[in-house]
Amino acid sequence: MQKLWAGRFQEGASSLLDEFNASLLFDRELYKEDIAGSIAHAKMLAKQEIIKESESKEIIRGLESIKTEIDCGEFIFDIADEDIHMAIEKRLIELVGEVGKKLHTARSRNDQVALDFRLYTLNSSKEIRVQLIENIKTLLEIASKNCEVMIPGMTHLQHAQPINFGFHLLAYISMFKRDVERLDSLIERNNYLPLGCAALAGTPYNSDRDFLSKELGFKEPTINCLDTVSDRDFALDILFAISVAMMHISRLSEELILWSSYEFRFVTIDDKYATGSSIMPQKKNPDVPELLRGKTGRVYGNLISLLTVMKGLPLAYNKDTQEDKEGVFDSVKTIKISLKILKEVMATLRINKENMERACKIGHLSATDLADYLVQKCSIPFREAHFITGKAVAYAEKKEKDLSELDLEELQEVDSRIKKEALESLKLINSMNARDSKGGTATKETLRQCEYFKRWLEGLEVG
Amino acid sequence: MQKLWAGRFQEGASSLLDEFNASLLFDRELYKEDIAGSIAHAKMLAKQEIIKESESKEIIRGLESIKTEIDCGEFIFDIADEDIHMAIEKRLIELVGEVGKKLHTARSRNDQVALDFRLYTLNSSKEIRVQLIENIKTLLEIASKNCEVMIPGMTHLQHAQPINFGFHLLAYISMFKRDVERLDSLIERNNYLPLGCAALAGTPYNSDRDFLSKELGFKEPTINCLDTVSDRDFALDILFAISVAMMHISRLSEELILWSSYEFRFVTIDDKYATGSSIMPQKKNPDVPELLRGKTGRVYGNLISLLTVMKGLPLAYNKDTQEDKEGVFDSVKTIKISLKILKEVMATLRINKENMERACKIGHLSATDLADYLVQKCSIPFREAHFITGKAVAYAEKKEKDLSELDLEELQEVDSRIKKEALESLKLINSMNARDSKGGTATKETLRQCEYFKRWLEGLEVG
Amino acid sequence: MQKLWAGRFQEGASSLLDEFNASLLFDRELYKEDIAGSIAHAKMLAKQEIIKESESKEIIRGLESIKTEIDCGEFIFDIADEDIHMAIEKRLIELVGEVGKKLHTARSRNDQVALDFRLYTLNSSKEIRVQLIENIKTLLEIASKNCEVMIPGMTHLQHAQPINFGFHLLAYISMFKRDVERLDSLIERNNYLPLGCAALAGTPYNSDRDFLSKELGFKEPTINCLDTVSDRDFALDILFAISVAMMHISRLSEELILWSSYEFRFVTIDDKYATGSSIMPQKKNPDVPELLRGKTGRVYGNLISLLTVMKGLPLAYNKDTQEDKEGVFDSVKTIKISLKILKEVMATLRINKENMERACKIGHLSATDLADYLVQKCSIPFREAHFITGKAVAYAEKKEKDLSELDLEELQEVDSRIKKEALESLKLINSMNARDSKGGTATKETLRQCEYFKRWLEGLEVG
Amino acid sequence: MQKLWAGRFQEGASSLLDEFNASLLFDRELYKEDIAGSIAHAKMLAKQEIIKESESKEIIRGLESIKTEIDCGEFIFDIADEDIHMAIEKRLIELVGEVGKKLHTARSRNDQVALDFRLYTLNSSKEIRVQLIENIKTLLEIASKNCEVMIPGMTHLQHAQPINFGFHLLAYISMFKRDVERLDSLIERNNYLPLGCAALAGTPYNSDRDFLSKELGFKEPTINCLDTVSDRDFALDILFAISVAMMHISRLSEELILWSSYEFRFVTIDDKYATGSSIMPQKKNPDVPELLRGKTGRVYGNLISLLTVMKGLPLAYNKDTQEDKEGVFDSVKTIKISLKILKEVMATLRINKENMERACKIGHLSATDLADYLVQKCSIPFREAHFITGKAVAYAEKKEKDLSELDLEELQEVDSRIKKEALESLKLINSMNARDSKGGTATKETLRQCEYFKRWLEGLEVG
Repeated sequence: MQKLWAGRFQEGASSLLDEFNASLLFDRELYKEDIAGSIAHAKMLAKQEIIKESESKEIIRGLESIKTEIDCGEFIFDIADEDIHMAIEKRLIELVGEVGKKLHTARSRNDQVALDFRLYTLNSSKEIRVQLIENIKTLLEIASKNCEVMIPGMTHLQHAQPINFGFHLLAYISMFKRDVERLDSLIERNNYLPLGCAALAGTPYNSDRDFLSKELGFKEPTINCLDTVSDRDFALDILFAISVAMMHISRLSEELILWSSYEFRFVTIDDKYATGSSIMPQKKNPDVPELLRGKTGRVYGNLISLLTVMKGLPLAYNKDTQEDKEGVFDSVKTIKISLKILKEVMATLRINKENMERACKIGHLSATDLADYLVQKCSIPFREAHFITGKAVAYAEKKEKDLSELDLEELQEVDSRIKKEALESLKLINSMNARDSKGGTATKETLRQCEYFKRWLEGLEVG
Repeated sequence: MQKLWAGRFQEGASSLLDEFNASLLFDRELYKEDIAGSIAHAKMLAKQEIIKESESKEIIRGLESIKTEIDCGEFIFDIADEDIHMAIEKRLIELVGEVGKKLHTARSRNDQVALDFRLYTLNSSKEIRVQLIENIKTLLEIASKNCEVMIPGMTHLQHAQPINFGFHLLAYISMFKRDVERLDSLIERNNYLPLGCAALAGTPYNSDRDFLSKELGFKEPTINCLDTVSDRDFALDILFAISVAMMHISRLSEELILWSSYEFRFVTIDDKYATGSSIMPQKKNPDVPELLRGKTGRVYGNLISLLTVMKGLPLAYNKDTQEDKEGVFDSVKTIKISLKILKEVMATLRINKENMERACKIGHLSATDLADYLVQKCSIPFREAHFITGKAVAYAEKKEKDLSELDLEELQEVDSRIKKEALESLKLINSMNARDSKGGTATKETLRQCEYFKRWLEGLEVG
Repeated sequence: MQKLWAGRFQEGASSLLDEFNASLLFDRELYKEDIAGSIAHAKMLAKQEIIKESESKEIIRGLESIKTEIDCGEFIFDIADEDIHMAIEKRLIELVGEVGKKLHTARSRNDQVALDFRLYTLNSSKEIRVQLIENIKTLLEIASKNCEVMIPGMTHLQHAQPINFGFHLLAYISMFKRDVERLDSLIERNNYLPLGCAALAGTPYNSDRDFLSKELGFKEPTINCLDTVSDRDFALDILFAISVAMMHISRLSEELILWSSYEFRFVTIDDKYATGSSIMPQKKNPDVPELLRGKTGRVYGNLISLLTVMKGLPLAYNKDTQEDKEGVFDSVKTIKISLKILKEVMATLRINKENMERACKIGHLSATDLADYLVQKCSIPFREAHFITGKAVAYAEKKEKDLSELDLEELQEVDSRIKKEALESLKLINSMNARDSKGGTATKETLRQCEYFKRWLEGLEVG
Repeated sequence: MQKLWAGRFQEGASSLLDEFNASLLFDRELYKEDIAGSIAHAKMLAKQEIIKESESKEIIRGLESIKTEIDCGEFIFDIADEDIHMAIEKRLIELVGEVGKKLHTARSRNDQVALDFRLYTLNSSKEIRVQLIENIKTLLEIASKNCEVMIPGMTHLQHAQPINFGFHLLAYISMFKRDVERLDSLIERNNYLPLGCAALAGTPYNSDRDFLSKELGFKEPTINCLDTVSDRDFALDILFAISVAMMHISRLSEELILWSSYEFRFVTIDDKYATGSSIMPQKKNPDVPELLRGKTGRVYGNLISLLTVMKGLPLAYNKDTQEDKEGVFDSVKTIKISLKILKEVMATLRINKENMERACKIGHLSATDLADYLVQKCSIPFREAHFITGKAVAYAEKKEKDLSELDLEELQEVDSRIKKEALESLKLINSMNARDSKGGTATKETLRQCEYFKRWLEGLEVG
């Protein structure tokens, strides 16, 4: 088939060029956005009397047929059509005849691709946002029910202080909340209509970009056409937002993997979301969190790919930019299925409370409390209290006991200023509930945090 | 010197460990933030009667002395102090005695570092924001004066349509505006106080994080301590914002390099910002834009570094996170000096209007106008008009003329429907000014875009 | 269908898990390697009398049928089979019955995937190597014919010294030669058989890995099984080699884009490998080099993806590693089609010698020669000669001449020590041919370099 | 001070340019290489009678003085000198007068920097190689002594099969061996002299690059000067080699962190290489492996930085390339200190054999052996044997026993074909030692692997 731009060329394109150059194999993903944009454009052309109302209707009818054809898998994609825009336009001309050729008035492929891809990005951002919120709800439900279940809070993967499991999950809720906000800000920042910029300089037709903007749900048209056709900030923004969200997921996954190990046994992943080994019949593997963790790599890669592509490109459109889409599609699909399965894994997770609580008795988790006791009750400066407690821990280890198991006599051997009431401070449950400052792990304060997130979710749903 | 945490250790740290582990060599950058945080903390401790008012004052006096010492370069940094927090605390104890040991009550290094680093990030974001705005102003001033200077608008580095130079610069203003907005959103998203989270679980002291938050200029305290001590989203956010901004700068730099070449000669970089060759005496090199373009690499690298560090880290604090700071410091410094010098380069740039305008006569820039003429005046569908124009271009090339130089007879040889008025459309100035739709390159419309950005700037300055 | 590992599970896998977990959609790419590995394994099992000779033959016959089925597109891939290994094994059992179940003796999926993927990597490396060599040959042919065609040698995109076009192309040949050597070294470094490592610890069967190694064309078996099943260095090695090669290609592409611009017009890309614009009928766009440049982004991204995946993984196999393949497949396909089309673009490139030579007269390209003359004939230290020449250039610019166009009188006005013979040095052709030291641009020396590469190629072909 | 290239400039450089442009603050790192290169160059100039023997000697004497000055910290670095080459040359002229100006004959800063940086890279590669070998020796010594200590071999962080600790360490030795080989190949691939290429085109002087090559220890001069001055493959090669090596280190670090946790307690890091907490007195944190793991991020970042810088750069030298050095310096320093401290951490590591062996009794580690027994002794196809064993594991879990603790009666309840000798197969030590195929974990085979590496080391030391 002759290319739509073939006028000045003496030779046809080689088929190798078609194969190398065509984006149709991946940008067909954008057919809905492309057709929606074309319909809005056809309406505008009629409204502005650039084409006739009847022509517009015919074009729109044709476009709607094409959408149905693609929806049903009946549309024949031919790589020689180069891209989804050309493929649809060619089919339109087949369907509605000469009038179809008028659709491309007052626009260019450059602003068409900018429109389609931006619509896809904004829509995907909204869908990911919904999935994040669903995950937050699932986590919040589990958290609310586990604010009294003690688990060793860790730093450096070493037992540090007793916290509750609900409090632990709230950390991930906090991360996902930021992810939602990061998506909100990118949606707002990029919610501008690219269509109508034509090749790079705007169009001499009396087109109405404000109309197009409303029709397609944007805030307003972009300000400068040269920027618009070469802008891919919106794609970078979503690639970054997905990277950070996947990084958060990778951290939760790491913990799920650790917690599923024989060494921890804090949780049991449901059989539905675990797999076995082809050679070792006893194995039950946490494949899902492992893959979630691994998939962080691919979304990071997609981010760095597009950053690399955009570096140093002169204005305006360059063909390099065609490399923008596959990575975004891949990252979007990756996070969507990741959030979908993560929600299920969490919802069906068995929490082994006894194992968590048993683990709290290892590692002198109430050591800070002894130090705090020394400060508050014996007026010893913190730094010195810290030192004394360090000695008490060394003493307990020598005795093969946990610090919380030392009796008063033993404690006084370490420092004679320690009094009976210190024993109370050393109890794990007291240690946890003592941390009731804002943001702390005391059960009461953790429940307050749950309430905070519930209200935030309600605010979202109203808004 | 004995470590502040040495109580339970039987052996001292090796000096190799000190060298490997210490962050003091780079985190001393944070001394102002650290002292500001400590002063606020001391005030809070007194307000909450955790320490005495007099003790608080003594501590604050000591901290202020230390600030002066560091400001003046009199402070002695000892790598054995590990980090800036320890270095300042040790010196505080030297200066004010035992009472200094009380400062570390109800906080931990984990939340101190989280505070200092977040303050640094927020402050830096604001400073970069100011510099971006200054660059926008500089560009806007040049743009406003050059809305009638024609330059070939390019796609694929091929002459495409005539635009004006002001319009071209407005593309970069649009990019920098998004960069400002990206910074705004990260400031808002991360404007929460980390201090008071202690190691990971909050503190048993009656501390007042709302007071601290106000004192240090935050919106409110963070919600969940476990998240807070391990959250580095704010650092990733600034690394990404800087990456995108440097990518924009790299594009402008690429154009400055091209435009400075013998082939283009569109602009002349001021001697103050160009360099020579050690071997070729005739050379004048655009080192500044080349370096700006090259520095994109380092800020991308810093982003991927921290993303890599954070991947798969279990909660809460892990020492890996210490690797967060150098990259951020480097990216912040890089963009600051880049924006500083870019502004000067642009402000002193000589614009060679004649060369720009001469270049417009190459490449049949008004070809689209012939096509548009055929559509609008001869009612030929765009796709066909495009094809006819392609033939006209081929014809012109054969005659070694620009399309705009063909006379009516020649045009009619290509297609007999072409009439005299087509000649008018083919004039370059008319071609440019025809594109007066919103966002277009017509001088009038470009001036409107300038106004738009001026009002936006005014809105910022009021706000 | 029941999973092959389902024995200990109470519940079947969810279909969401199947979708998330399965690698079949991409690892089917490895079917040839998988079948080759299985055939070798079946032979070994018989040779070692682990299975009967007749069983082995039956299995091999089945495997060969499966290969034919897949080759012809008749094989039905079912995502529930998880991966290509399971899919083939299940089909094998269908085809040959119970005996098919014996094939998986003394091996595991872990070492199967390690084998298949390594074979793929080594084979791809060899194929890319061949393509690089073909590109070198094409470039060498062009270079050999253009050793007298002058082109401005540039630094900082500024004209620097006259060089010849052949010499310029030899720079890319040098790069591609290193790419060949980089592939050679990775092939050698990774040419070890993984099969026979089983899950991670070797196998209790009397298997003969040396036999397998020979059968499959490896140097010898890997040394340590635990390393082998978790080693992905070979994949990183090829991702890096491709990244560097694509970086080289991006540089050549950048030059092709510049050279195709109206400003340069040094080369004309054949119509077969250029495209037009949907809106601007006059455009001829260098899409191929632009895409080649852009595709650098994706191969960089694939590299960083796998580096990220591998970071911090404990031994041995983790499911994260499943993320290793898609990126490698993508990078391999990318460079293969890139090298294929690059070769054609270069072979059909029109070289506009007159434009190249005309450009040499701009930019005082023989300035260094004046400096060298001053050093050699007037015994002026180089640094001073450089300074004098700088003044001569400034003088020429003021007179709007090229330095080579100044007459003796004018030159002596700059410095009276300049004598008539200096005029000879300033001639461009003399300037170029003066640089005849090893590696230099003199035509004679360039031809010697061509010879060098020809001999290197011959050495390769013999070897 | 006036720049050495200032001849044609009307205005001096701004101090902001100096600050932005100068590389002196980091490239002073290269002073030794720069002086070595200059001394060789001075010798060559004399040998070729381009300067007098006496002049050469005077220059060399000056250069040696400068080296002493810098070694002793007496040299005054002035940022206005731009880079280390200019700084040294200026000082040379101060020290030896006019004759110093002759040194820069027949070379350029472009090939000077190419030389210095390549020398640095090759030398660093050799030093890292030595450190890797030292780490291999340390690991090999530990491995040799621990070939009978059982530890659970893991996949998916789940207990899989019993292996020995020596065998586990041999996996890391295998990785480091590949790292050594990767360095070897980059040294060989880049061992070519850049000096003498001048700016980009070679030099008209009768210089002897073969002499320079021998003098400076290279294999031979590079082939094409244009390539040479813009080639940074050698820098990418070392950045990649370091990235892979740090990735390996990050995996060992991850395991050290896991093994140091309360949950595992497989190893105890020496107090000399662990740190405490400022708030939790009982903590002993594995800071060193955490930092090692974290530092992987920075070396990945450095790699992606330079790849980004190099993408799409036209030939030959561009100032962007100045961004090449800091990342390489940083990665080299990072891996050097990492390997230094890793060696110490491993050499002083306490191995808690009892804990390792106790852990082997968890997770039915001999399940595969039951399956293998069923295959070998009962002629059951592997796939079916796998299924039966899965059921046996489920049975054992129900009984809260390890599979190895089931008695014959219980086993026969699962499958009546199981005979008494199966009990022997289920013993852990037998399970481990059964895996005696090449590369397997049997003690005897592990010792053979130790021998293999010892011989390889000896081969290296002789060679």
